[in-house]
Amino acid sequence: MITLASDFGSPYPAAMRGVLLSRTDARLVDIAHDLPRQDVRAGAFWLREVLPWFPPAVHLVVVDPGVGTDRAAIAVRAGEHVLIGPDNGILIPPARSLCERQGQESEGFEVCAIDPGEPASSTFHGRDVFAPAAAAVHEQGIDAVANRPFKSWTDLRFPAAHTGADGAQGEVLVIDGFGNVITNIPGELLNGVFGGTISINGDPIPAVKSYAHAQPGDRIATVGSHGNLELAVTQGRGDEAYDLTPGDSVEVILRDEDAMARR
Amino acid sequence: MITLASDFGSPYPAAMRGVLLSRTDARLVDIAHDLPRQDVRAGAFWLREVLPWFPPAVHLVVVDPGVGTDRAAIAVRAGEHVLIGPDNGILIPPARSLCERQGQESEGFEVCAIDPGEPASSTFHGRDVFAPAAAAVHEQGIDAVANRPFKSWTDLRFPAAHTGADGAQGEVLVIDGFGNVITNIPGELLNGVFGGTISINGDPIPAVKSYAHAQPGDRIATVGSHGNLELAVTQGRGDEAYDLTPGDSVEVILRDEDAMARR
Amino acid sequence: MITLASDFGSPYPAAMRGVLLSRTDARLVDIAHDLPRQDVRAGAFWLREVLPWFPPAVHLVVVDPGVGTDRAAIAVRAGEHVLIGPDNGILIPPARSLCERQGQESEGFEVCAIDPGEPASSTFHGRDVFAPAAAAVHEQGIDAVANRPFKSWTDLRFPAAHTGADGAQGEVLVIDGFGNVITNIPGELLNGVFGGTISINGDPIPAVKSYAHAQPGDRIATVGSHGNLELAVTQGRGDEAYDLTPGDSVEVILRDEDAMARR
Repeated sequence: MITLASDFGSPYPAAMRGVLLSRTDARLVDIAHDLPRQDVRAGAFWLREVLPWFPPAVHLVVVDPGVGTDRAAIAVRAGEHVLIGPDNGILIPPARSLCERQGQESEGFEVCAIDPGEPASSTFHGRDVFAPAAAAVHEQGIDAVANRPFKSWTDLRFPAAHTGADGAQGEVLVIDGFGNVITNIPGELLNGVFGGTISINGDPIPAVKSYAHAQPGDRIATVGSHGNLELAVTQGRGDEAYDLTPGDSVEVILRDEDAMARR
Repeated sequence: MITLASDFGSPYPAAMRGVLLSRTDARLVDIAHDLPRQDVRAGAFWLREVLPWFPPAVHLVVVDPGVGTDRAAIAVRAGEHVLIGPDNGILIPPARSLCERQGQESEGFEVCAIDPGEPASSTFHGRDVFAPAAAAVHEQGIDAVANRPFKSWTDLRFPAAHTGADGAQGEVLVIDGFGNVITNIPGELLNGVFGGTISINGDPIPAVKSYAHAQPGDRIATVGSHGNLELAVTQGRGDEAYDLTPGDSVEVILRDEDAMARR
Repeated sequence: MITLASDFGSPYPAAMRGVLLSRTDARLVDIAHDLPRQDVRAGAFWLREVLPWFPPAVHLVVVDPGVGTDRAAIAVRAGEHVLIGPDNGILIPPARSLCERQGQESEGFEVCAIDPGEPASSTFHGRDVFAPAAAAVHEQGIDAVANRPFKSWTDLRFPAAHTGADGAQGEVLVIDGFGNVITNIPGELLNGVFGGTISINGDPIPAVKSYAHAQPGDRIATVGSHGNLELAVTQGRGDEAYDLTPGDSVEVILRDEDAMARR
């Protein structure tokens, strides 16, 4: 099985499918081809969340603003999974989550360099470098394309939130397609306050178990499917109602008398 | 074969694919993941139209504004097909059309409740409840997850148009991606008037066999691929030119002397 | 293997998948379903670029503004590939590129007419004519549906650019989803000037090997993955910055003293 993820939109991913199918009978499964454009951090977040649900596979990942420069092409072995893509950090968070999902140390992955050869283009290594490498790894194993350990790979880590008994200080990681604001604050923070009101950046907000536990148009705080605190609007867009964008600060106070008084 | 339909956009459907592929080798086929957001009625319409073209399959359907509430999870047996999704009505119109397509009574479907267990999230039952149920039904049959008849399921019916020899009174069901306005008025109404002019909400409109039988920009009335009267603009958007939205009334008069005089 | 390409958006392609899967176990591979709406020329360009990457397959192509008129339905044999779709020119550029890719003369393709029978609709021949034909060709070969040569097929050719030692005069073929402006000027023109500045429609523009060889927001000239001159903006949209649209003229002067003086 080979999964495909990119920010290419359409129809470029089809060229990658053609290259793969010319070289392998592997099942192809699309993750997404509308990952936020050239946004390595957002891509890494989504792949970290989604790839661990898959059985062992080769994961072809191309969000590659540095295509055509000297950034390396890498293959990352994470237990029974292999990730293939550019060395810009995007493969590392999913490599860690795949290791954890398989009961390994999160740092138990190995990074190797891929020899890109003489690619047919300087602008589409998804087609000319990464898809051929993914097919070769699927057919012959990772050593076929990447037998040279690569030490100087680019790391990417998401900032941790500061949490305490009374609340948390964190930030927005990504906005999803519904407009839900996904933070780095662990959802466990809300245990014990569901059905009550908390303070989000100074505003009183109901903490609820899911979107439908409020009226359409209401701002809510809930726990998204990734397990983090999510700021949303029932049947609406949280990013607009909260006026938040990735990187913005989010302060949660579980019991804020002042905010409550302002309700 | 398992088909997938949702309003999730991207990349959430990939998590459902991963869960399915961890549990079954079934062929996966996407119906659509951009069904109108949280719009049970529009989703039911499209599934009613599309699913009967498929061979026997398990159909995983997740448009689920009530996720995390006590709305039931159901499996619907419609001949050799099984539909899996939330009990909000969305499965019922396609269940009826699947029964009819197989030469059965439209009411010949059976509804069973699925035990949701303890889902990992309150916000993504597509991944945590419905995908595992679809995989289990594919591998072991419907009794594996739903052996308990469920009587109090939620029905959903589309309003019927009133038709006569002189015209019809109906309403807009959905707008498609081209902006075509799909009504509930049977297309047979136009038999005998193709090439002529009819009245739509008081305006004179040519009745044509297909879009190209008019000039780009012209408003037309035709019969869509679903068999219903469709209000369109050749190489344009019917919804904007007609200023119509789902639920709006549509009055057709086949021969309206007044409207004709105003041409 | 059957590939599917259309301008249908969603969910209409799912009906084609259902029809195909009711008649064949072929692997289905999506090329794109968001080809520019009713734009035969843009569709032909993308298929010309993408289909040659595939192994032998039946290619179902439906961009069909003339659906329901007397335009013919055709099957085009291009070596081991077969293209199925409407006779509006869209199949011809990919037929030529498929022939070339297989080491044949570009004109070595054959065009046959498909008997459309009595289609169930006048508005969706993708479902009612072309998908059944594609399934039949996959299962039984092209003679099953199209054994009658068709001489009067519609040709489509892209204009050639005029190139010389000092520059080129060409035009915009299409805009891709990133906003990159794809011209008909061969990319070889830039050999020897990478790293320097050229004149594009009178403006001085750096010629670079790939997007990241300039700063975010910079206008650049580069060679796209199709091998043609592409006008882009690093991490931005070239179509907006250059104010260019398909059909517009593009003049390149490799060494323009006047433009350089205006830098």
